[in-house]
Amino acid sequence: MNDTRNDVIDLLLRHRSIRKFRSDPVPDEHVRLAVEAGQMASTSSAVQAYSLIRVRDRATREAIAELAGPQPKVVECGAFFVILGDTRRHRIAAAREGNAYDQRLESFLVAAIDASLFAEKMVIAFESMGYGICYIGGLRNDTERADELLELPEGVYPLFGLCVGVPDESPSRRPRLPVESVLFEERYPSDEAVLHQLASYDEGYVEYLKARGVETPVAWSVQRGRAYAEPKRTHLGPYYRGKGADLR
Amino acid sequence: MNDTRNDVIDLLLRHRSIRKFRSDPVPDEHVRLAVEAGQMASTSSAVQAYSLIRVRDRATREAIAELAGPQPKVVECGAFFVILGDTRRHRIAAAREGNAYDQRLESFLVAAIDASLFAEKMVIAFESMGYGICYIGGLRNDTERADELLELPEGVYPLFGLCVGVPDESPSRRPRLPVESVLFEERYPSDEAVLHQLASYDEGYVEYLKARGVETPVAWSVQRGRAYAEPKRTHLGPYYRGKGADLR
Repeated sequence: MNDTRNDVIDLLLRHRSIRKFRSDPVPDEHVRLAVEAGQMASTSSAVQAYSLIRVRDRATREAIAELAGPQPKVVECGAFFVILGDTRRHRIAAAREGNAYDQRLESFLVAAIDASLFAEKMVIAFESMGYGICYIGGLRNDTERADELLELPEGVYPLFGLCVGVPDESPSRRPRLPVESVLFEERYPSDEAVLHQLASYDEGYVEYLKARGVETPVAWSVQRGRAYAEPKRTHLGPYYRGKGADLR
Repeated sequence: MNDTRNDVIDLLLRHRSIRKFRSDPVPDEHVRLAVEAGQMASTSSAVQAYSLIRVRDRATREAIAELAGPQPKVVECGAFFVILGDTRRHRIAAAREGNAYDQRLESFLVAAIDASLFAEKMVIAFESMGYGICYIGGLRNDTERADELLELPEGVYPLFGLCVGVPDESPSRRPRLPVESVLFEERYPSDEAVLHQLASYDEGYVEYLKARGVETPVAWSVQRGRAYAEPKRTHLGPYYRGKGADLR
């Protein structure tokens, strides 16, 4: 084995989501190289159930920035992408063979997993070149509108946006759950054990929020405990089903 | 910007899934460091909707190896993990605040995406240390059995397994789709354009299969065209719904 702590791990640990970008463009050859690196991510049985669309057009970017928040960084960053779970190629291939495409949740889930493995690997390639990135989950606020803008056909599922560009800020590290809260041995722990681990995390999280100038910082587990009483993005299931995802 | 092509990108491009491992164990400090690196992956609004279970027990590993294929590497590799989409912490936090947990597809999708971003980042950390990895999608063959073995509570969704260990083979690169087939400009291309790009990929894919000694190699798009007529893993939707995922 190589040295345990190495330059790659240092890069991985240095990640911060960047929300303020300089306007420098991201050259096509950098994008191409990052995509090629991302494509080497594992993919379930080589299905490669993902695609991405680079959006350069300013009006389209402005429309996505608006529906996602608004989030001006979608317009400001050097390169903006929409990441897609993609079963279109499979459906076209099936039609050409004269076969039906009859899949359930498995195929939608594989698309979401494949696209995410690809995106994270591509992101690390961009970061290794010195770029900053921010995923834009807010794309899912209005998938119908995003769909129209990008002319998505049946079998293509928009998952999230991605801003890439030269960072114009240097944010502090947002604390993650303690390793003990995510890495378990042999089986899933009891609720009591889970709650016990959250207490120390909550303390550190409040300190982090205070340091960022938040006036009334709320512990992570309290935030989470308030976040789920009302269903979020209820259009999402009907939208994906309308695009041909059978979620049974 | 740093040099475009760099050591990190070389590592990312070198990835091969490893299916044959030496029996060397993976020390806890390596696992801990890789998990910490993985946790620095982006996460939707800091929800961190994932966990992983390290399985050391031989009988459990044998049972998972069996249900996943059989795939002996699940027993043979130095470290085996099950990656989980995890809304359990959120549900416990909500209950403590006296709030309901009422979520739809969005929350399940976020768990699948978060867990995959985390897993891929962790995998790159392991690979930077010289380990090889293989994702085990076959875990989804029998989620009920995996669930029993790992004692998963409501709100926890097993997604895939992960073998990590010292490689005992040096496989060739499996060709990926051409960049033009996954990276689009401004909008999604026509079916004709998609099919056109697949033709050159099919050729290279057949060459790859021949070089690996496959006697009757089948082009990628033909394989795909035959793969979807019958629904796969139809138990998956009912299983996840039974674990509390409202997929509407």
